[in-house]
Amino acid sequence: MLQNQLFTKTRKEAPKDEVAKNAQLLIRAGFIHKEMAGAYSFLPLGLMVIEKIKQIVREEMNKIGGQEIIMTSLQRKELWEKTDRWDDEKVDVWFKSALKSGGEVGFGWSHEEPITEMMNSFISSYRDLPVYVYQFQTKMRNELRAKSGIMRGREFVMKDMYSYTTSEEAHKKFYDLTKGAYMRVFERAGLGDRTFLTFASGGAFTKFSHEFQTLTDAGEDVIYLHRGKKIAINKEVLLPEVLEELGVKEAELEEVKAAEVGNIFSFGGSKSEQLGLRFNDEKGEAHPVILGSYGIGITRLMGTVVEIFADDKGIVWPESIAPFKYHLIDLNSKERANKIYKALADKGIEVLFDDRDTRAGEKFADADLIGIPYQVIVSERGEAEKTVEVKNRMTGETKIISEEEFVSS
Amino acid sequence: MLQNQLFTKTRKEAPKDEVAKNAQLLIRAGFIHKEMAGAYSFLPLGLMVIEKIKQIVREEMNKIGGQEIIMTSLQRKELWEKTDRWDDEKVDVWFKSALKSGGEVGFGWSHEEPITEMMNSFISSYRDLPVYVYQFQTKMRNELRAKSGIMRGREFVMKDMYSYTTSEEAHKKFYDLTKGAYMRVFERAGLGDRTFLTFASGGAFTKFSHEFQTLTDAGEDVIYLHRGKKIAINKEVLLPEVLEELGVKEAELEEVKAAEVGNIFSFGGSKSEQLGLRFNDEKGEAHPVILGSYGIGITRLMGTVVEIFADDKGIVWPESIAPFKYHLIDLNSKERANKIYKALADKGIEVLFDDRDTRAGEKFADADLIGIPYQVIVSERGEAEKTVEVKNRMTGETKIISEEEFVSS
Repeated sequence: MLQNQLFTKTRKEAPKDEVAKNAQLLIRAGFIHKEMAGAYSFLPLGLMVIEKIKQIVREEMNKIGGQEIIMTSLQRKELWEKTDRWDDEKVDVWFKSALKSGGEVGFGWSHEEPITEMMNSFISSYRDLPVYVYQFQTKMRNELRAKSGIMRGREFVMKDMYSYTTSEEAHKKFYDLTKGAYMRVFERAGLGDRTFLTFASGGAFTKFSHEFQTLTDAGEDVIYLHRGKKIAINKEVLLPEVLEELGVKEAELEEVKAAEVGNIFSFGGSKSEQLGLRFNDEKGEAHPVILGSYGIGITRLMGTVVEIFADDKGIVWPESIAPFKYHLIDLNSKERANKIYKALADKGIEVLFDDRDTRAGEKFADADLIGIPYQVIVSERGEAEKTVEVKNRMTGETKIISEEEFVSS
Repeated sequence: MLQNQLFTKTRKEAPKDEVAKNAQLLIRAGFIHKEMAGAYSFLPLGLMVIEKIKQIVREEMNKIGGQEIIMTSLQRKELWEKTDRWDDEKVDVWFKSALKSGGEVGFGWSHEEPITEMMNSFISSYRDLPVYVYQFQTKMRNELRAKSGIMRGREFVMKDMYSYTTSEEAHKKFYDLTKGAYMRVFERAGLGDRTFLTFASGGAFTKFSHEFQTLTDAGEDVIYLHRGKKIAINKEVLLPEVLEELGVKEAELEEVKAAEVGNIFSFGGSKSEQLGLRFNDEKGEAHPVILGSYGIGITRLMGTVVEIFADDKGIVWPESIAPFKYHLIDLNSKERANKIYKALADKGIEVLFDDRDTRAGEKFADADLIGIPYQVIVSERGEAEKTVEVKNRMTGETKIISEEEFVSS
């Protein structure tokens, strides 16, 4: 892509009311635009990152048998009344609106209810199970405060998956499979080293639910980390019997700030009971379907990556979710840079080409702010020997290599 | 994909309250699920069709210079007050909700206002223009009635594009370019023959806006068609002077029902004036930016295709937007069918494999209902000579060809 044609521009300053580092940098670099507190539009570079994260998650969910769907945002009052989650005193993040045709609708802040209700159309026998479905949904939450940039939004993208199984054993098997898939997602997105399986309270059906917490000072959570065992404990279950069960001592735990990038939860048969979702077993006896729910905050993950890797010059993207692999920078060597750009484009390699008539200092500052993994500088210095300088944005390392070697690498 | 693993199932009957043929068939075949009137979830097969349509539109919008973004659904009251489109008496399809932090928000039924407001961050000089941006947005419209299935929703997917240019001439050039891109979209989606550029009223800036109307009895519009000139006229501009300008006679026009699958509209500088979006020209003089707006109803297009091509057996997809190219049907020849499935999968060819233990009649009925372009029947009859029967869903033609020829074709 030609940077000259990209309609976004970098900015020296973020809006004054923006306090979160992730949003400040993403706004300054032209990835997002702030519509209001907690609601951001995603501009071309930002949408590219979102789509890359979604594709990683999609691949890992498909691998464990997930089928992708997309539910509606509009929610029927009657449905949520069945599970007693319509009332604002029960759920305090609803956006609700009057319907022109009479009555009220809500806007989906979660989707266990409609997906489980829908499964009544598809599940009646043990032969119909298991079913694993997921979606990338724009969730709406009427948050009182939204100060963490894209890490906690009033409108944000979440991958939510739901499992429907016949038994606790079958549920447990898929639940454990999901743990692995989730860790692969965070590893592929560059967060593997600092993301920890975290024990949290489990509700009526199981002792624990599990969170995936990524260490960052920008996180809103406090967890108790056992680095040796690579696990963490949420404050709500920091109890003597839990420590004993997990085989850790309180003194071995570190209190750290973290962001919850994912969570997995077992509902047992409770929600299926409320919504009438039952299956007949081999003997023709009816049982409630066992439900599990599995979330990954797509926009939160993006914000977390920015918070963790950014330095004083700007954003630093891991290659797996960067909008482009290369940032090709032309310094008065347009003919040569053009040739390299075309060679990369022909090979289908993702490259942002800074073809602007701008001073070198501004180009370097913009490239550092935008944070593409490799900056490839084509300048007069390399003219004679036909070389380019390749700078690794994360490590700062640079090397001079021949054009030919670079293009064929 | 193995049909056995697909969680959706075909149904003999659609919900009793569903009156639209497109929704009845799409529900029966397992493409969509009705949440409420005008709000449908998209199941795996339905989402595949949506993504194929989006990809066609994306390619054509990128070709004419469009850059993809995604705006928020949440809308600020103050912004829409600037253009006098917040009041329910001015716009009667708003969904609005109270904000926990005080005040009201709306849910986007259109996005000219926020996109134009946002451009204040990126456009200040003629050097920043032109800008063409588009999004695939889930629009929310509080319709009093919604009886046309996915052809008119309370929640639906629309591609909306916006052009920002310096002059009427530059605007006109892009506007005409868009006409061509739109016709290519409808041709690629299988609607080319029956989609007509239709003259409609233009508002303050231009005499006409243009609709793209597809002939179908399921459409909500009535247009006046000139088959010879391949144009149509919307009733609102069916006036003697318009007929004269277009060089057509009233007697040559046919009154037909049609669905508006796209529309393009010129705003001139009016909305930019209201929202303060100006640019400085070469002499440093400020002018309002010229705005154009260009919509394609993605879900409406899908519904229109169903209405037009369906027959008494079910849906018929054009190959370009079908969820799969082949529906492989095993009739007691599982080993052979498996081998063919693997060979196709290895080549990356999209195939739905009916591997279910079900009677032949049910498999055929389901395949006809789902409407995948080519049904490939692997049965005992072809066992000896290793042949398969390939049936074209649209024409009904069948031919017997060798396995080898089919797999390598």
